[in-house]
Amino acid sequence: MRKRDFLATEDLGPDGFQRILELAARVKRGEVKGGLEGKILAAAFMDPSLRTRSSFEAAMFLHGGHMIVLEPGRGSWTWETEPGVVMEGTAVEHLIETSRVLARYADAIGVRVFPRGKEWVKERQDRVIRDFAAYSDKPVINLESARRHPCQGLADALTLKEKLGDPKGKKFVLSWAWHPKSLPTAVPASAAIAAAQLGMEVVIARPEGYDLDPDDMATIYQTATANGGRVSLATSMTDAMVGADAVYVKSWGALQFYGRPEEEREYRAGKRNWMMTVDLLKATKAGKGVVMHCLPVRRNVEIEDAVLDGPNSVVVDQAENRLHVQRALMLDLIGRR
Amino acid sequence: MRKRDFLATEDLGPDGFQRILELAARVKRGEVKGGLEGKILAAAFMDPSLRTRSSFEAAMFLHGGHMIVLEPGRGSWTWETEPGVVMEGTAVEHLIETSRVLARYADAIGVRVFPRGKEWVKERQDRVIRDFAAYSDKPVINLESARRHPCQGLADALTLKEKLGDPKGKKFVLSWAWHPKSLPTAVPASAAIAAAQLGMEVVIARPEGYDLDPDDMATIYQTATANGGRVSLATSMTDAMVGADAVYVKSWGALQFYGRPEEEREYRAGKRNWMMTVDLLKATKAGKGVVMHCLPVRRNVEIEDAVLDGPNSVVVDQAENRLHVQRALMLDLIGRR
Amino acid sequence: MRKRDFLATEDLGPDGFQRILELAARVKRGEVKGGLEGKILAAAFMDPSLRTRSSFEAAMFLHGGHMIVLEPGRGSWTWETEPGVVMEGTAVEHLIETSRVLARYADAIGVRVFPRGKEWVKERQDRVIRDFAAYSDKPVINLESARRHPCQGLADALTLKEKLGDPKGKKFVLSWAWHPKSLPTAVPASAAIAAAQLGMEVVIARPEGYDLDPDDMATIYQTATANGGRVSLATSMTDAMVGADAVYVKSWGALQFYGRPEEEREYRAGKRNWMMTVDLLKATKAGKGVVMHCLPVRRNVEIEDAVLDGPNSVVVDQAENRLHVQRALMLDLIGRR
Repeated sequence: MRKRDFLATEDLGPDGFQRILELAARVKRGEVKGGLEGKILAAAFMDPSLRTRSSFEAAMFLHGGHMIVLEPGRGSWTWETEPGVVMEGTAVEHLIETSRVLARYADAIGVRVFPRGKEWVKERQDRVIRDFAAYSDKPVINLESARRHPCQGLADALTLKEKLGDPKGKKFVLSWAWHPKSLPTAVPASAAIAAAQLGMEVVIARPEGYDLDPDDMATIYQTATANGGRVSLATSMTDAMVGADAVYVKSWGALQFYGRPEEEREYRAGKRNWMMTVDLLKATKAGKGVVMHCLPVRRNVEIEDAVLDGPNSVVVDQAENRLHVQRALMLDLIGRR
Repeated sequence: MRKRDFLATEDLGPDGFQRILELAARVKRGEVKGGLEGKILAAAFMDPSLRTRSSFEAAMFLHGGHMIVLEPGRGSWTWETEPGVVMEGTAVEHLIETSRVLARYADAIGVRVFPRGKEWVKERQDRVIRDFAAYSDKPVINLESARRHPCQGLADALTLKEKLGDPKGKKFVLSWAWHPKSLPTAVPASAAIAAAQLGMEVVIARPEGYDLDPDDMATIYQTATANGGRVSLATSMTDAMVGADAVYVKSWGALQFYGRPEEEREYRAGKRNWMMTVDLLKATKAGKGVVMHCLPVRRNVEIEDAVLDGPNSVVVDQAENRLHVQRALMLDLIGRR
Repeated sequence: MRKRDFLATEDLGPDGFQRILELAARVKRGEVKGGLEGKILAAAFMDPSLRTRSSFEAAMFLHGGHMIVLEPGRGSWTWETEPGVVMEGTAVEHLIETSRVLARYADAIGVRVFPRGKEWVKERQDRVIRDFAAYSDKPVINLESARRHPCQGLADALTLKEKLGDPKGKKFVLSWAWHPKSLPTAVPASAAIAAAQLGMEVVIARPEGYDLDPDDMATIYQTATANGGRVSLATSMTDAMVGADAVYVKSWGALQFYGRPEEEREYRAGKRNWMMTVDLLKATKAGKGVVMHCLPVRRNVEIEDAVLDGPNSVVVDQAENRLHVQRALMLDLIGRR
């Protein structure tokens, strides 16, 4: 049997996507015991993590397995990621060897590697995670790459199903928010794709200049169409809120200024009113629209305290669901049958 | 049932304190197997650790559980700890979310957060550990905060019981020692409180200007009285040693200079004779007083080599007892019954 | 029973060496289950690690045990390693206490401590790992010290046995390679000793000035003789290749310039032709000589891509064998019987 990687939720196809979500629901209800006895996930973090690390480590343990945590450049060796390079600089090990070796120790490999903030034309190829998958003969799991955060996408989808009943046709607003930094687009792209996979009416609200990568937009449109949903764009947070069943608040940097953070910062100035507030909540469907965020969230910058601490917020449920979808994912990918 | 936190040994009450110590003794004798199967402790370390980390990880594993280690600001996100703040600075995540989320992944949360060395008036409120407990709906365990190191206190108490038989009425000297740095008062306060909980005659020997926080002193006095012990102060290490059953050597900074380390350093000058030596040992009861320290210890600065490597030292037994009291603590807090 | 440390493969004696290798082969074939239930390895890394850390953690888990990872100076306290010192500097804890305490929590202690690059006359005593062994009453395992990397040596030996059938009398070339940094000699010394323990014809090819420590050379000669092998030196990589069954490529610094990296760098200049290439491969026995490296390897600096990605390379098998020899080692040292 060919090994299966997990790099993006859209790669699962409609059946695979629903299969994982249904297994996650069963796992969450306590109906699935064990299944990962003697199984090892080696998780390499080139960037910080709280939820991903904790929830994957918990997921492996709860089913009898184990997660090994590696931190290249800190406790482990710095990686070279370019192919064919003469390695006479500071990078000590090529990802080719890292990937091949970890595949000998582990049953699956997780990799977190954020974009480096230099050239989008290069980053958008998402080469590091793809190369890892190419060189490993065990499944590679994307723990957030330059383009996708598919475990978050799965958790978002499970949360939407729990909170909205059948999400099909319901209104999902992905809203940009101001943030002191230029953040990656992996989470908003993955959230919109997951909502499209659920057949929702996806609205992406963002200031001018903050469009997602055109390839991601194409994927969102195609996925929505294929699942009976639709996609539209909005330039006003307030307008987009009207009748929303779910509002996903998230900041990201303007790709046109990628690699030029000072220019992006200037361009971002004057947009601090893009913050989720109790006032905005009133416009959502019956004032009961659920508010989502992948966390970590900047309080009173992206979302105000009263929303995060109020009844509409489901951000902690989303975080909890990371655990359950990942239990399902690991059982699906490497579980004993 | 309401969740129970473990923030200070005095919060356990006399029965709870003795119950944990008795369970620890049984655990140490190998009489208690399992009990933490499938249970997870998420331990967040904002500061370094050898014993706490190793012994808690061992404790969980030995009974079938697992510890997840998080290091905010290194492998994990930097925390914001102030409530109501507009998070536009460097802190990426508020402890509110960290606490709420970890409570979804784990059965208990451990937090180590040393005082930051700025304003004692603020630090003495011990807000970070208390907020963690407030926002988590799972037990929060203090792995050393600004004011308390209760796991150390439990281990000290178990060691005193092992070495002195019934410690009631026996002489416990907490002696200040010189050290190149201004250290926190959590350990000396916790040790004195634990000795008071055992009903010992507690003597605190320190140079002028090195009194513990008045609230801690009040707790030590009240606890001693309630348990049939008493408390006195001494300004000479030599005098205090006379007839001591146990000498707890520990350095801490003068709180009057808190936040002004240069002034504290000057004030500390000339006090290097506050070091535990073989000569001082002779004054202890029959020359056999046990010498305690929480470790890490500065050799030949706080305690001389000959004492640490000689028969009076019980510092390694204390460290071992961290393991056993924590096994008992976790079984008591989240163990299967 | 006296505890047994594992500091060097030559300390095992011929019987012990073969016993571990045979157990490793059985372990690799899946014939040995469990054996480390409830056992803990505390592994302290003063230097980075990918393979050692992952493979030991996997080894412990696969047999029911657990590895605790410590990183002194990062998540844990900085060590003092000098005996008798007045600890008023930056080091917070003496290795004496670290060793004694970890021995209370764990069934074995692993220590990685590279040479510090100052004085070879001092480093060559390998004091840190030896002191750890002296102060611990549990087995201490060398995870790479200034002088030895014995777990790598075991993995190299298992790989040679797998690839060459009986390696006795077959030609093993240890070849120096250029590298941008002055690297330690622990790996080349351990590899040559392991080959000598297998009774191979050991050839050490290196530029003038790159001899290993005279004590290591003496050990290599004595070990080869005792096992029916022999040792010779070569100053040309090309000449040494002729008829080789196995080529172990590895860079190391010239000990005569130890502690003076700028001089060593100049001396190393002009030696970049010491790189393993496809052309050189042709000279090996029937062109099928296996190419070994401990990893991490500098691609196109020590070994060119075409060799690493070609059929002669066994570097990933070597890395995998770290796992199996360490499973065998831990079962041998602390396994349940």
